[in-house]
Amino acid sequence: MLNAVDHIGIAVANIDDAMELYRRIFAVSEFHRETVDEQGVHIASFTVGGVRIELTAPSRPDSPIATFLAKRGEGIHHVAFRTDAITADLQRMQDQDIRLINTTPQPGAHNMQIAFLHPKSTGGVLMELCAPASPSPSSPLE
Amino acid sequence: MLNAVDHIGIAVANIDDAMELYRRIFAVSEFHRETVDEQGVHIASFTVGGVRIELTAPSRPDSPIATFLAKRGEGIHHVAFRTDAITADLQRMQDQDIRLINTTPQPGAHNMQIAFLHPKSTGGVLMELCAPASPSPSSPLE
Repeated sequence: MLNAVDHIGIAVANIDDAMELYRRIFAVSEFHRETVDEQGVHIASFTVGGVRIELTAPSRPDSPIATFLAKRGEGIHHVAFRTDAITADLQRMQDQDIRLINTTPQPGAHNMQIAFLHPKSTGGVLMELCAPASPSPSSPLE
Repeated sequence: MLNAVDHIGIAVANIDDAMELYRRIFAVSEFHRETVDEQGVHIASFTVGGVRIELTAPSRPDSPIATFLAKRGEGIHHVAFRTDAITADLQRMQDQDIRLINTTPQPGAHNMQIAFLHPKSTGGVLMELCAPASPSPSSPLE
């Protein structure tokens, strides 16, 4: 079940310029910084209420974010919804004829498992499902 | 101070089709329905966690949403941030050289006062500030 808006992903060309802009708008004092190689992105994020605003810049030319920027320019890229049952939700989407980009969860930022729905079957909205990754059984104290 | 994500506005061509789609994705049982003449929009909304998802269709051909749909197609239209001091925040934005679409708050859905920032100065993201409208002094029991 999708039970919260986890974050809003915003495509930006340059992560440092974007942080400077968002500092001015939201008076952000500190950003979480991360690079997710699997997704080809540099991320700077902060929260407003319980929702994370995730500024996302390409970390390599073949990143999906680079393609988005070339096609649409900077702006809102996706909305991510948190679930505690990502596999079941992906199955439910398929049962409802919702097309998936990722049929199985992938590693994302913030130690989350993520999967994208295809915007062609969600009215043009790129939606991500995300769920906290299960702790590794080999490191129970993490 | 912007203290919460109030809602995510999604531009849709047809409000009934969009409701049917979102029922399938989110298993929504009930939508809030509203028409805001000032903004030229039909709205159907529901909440995920504390955040409202606001499906927005044009109620007349000269609606800004009609223009958006003609130019960009269906998709995420704006993000609205809640504030308890909208006038002070708009002034702070101007002091920070953030360009405004509305320099004074306007009537919006859900009995909110709203104002949009210009996407040209927010990295392509159409941002709305919104604040609960003060209760009318003539109807203290509303």
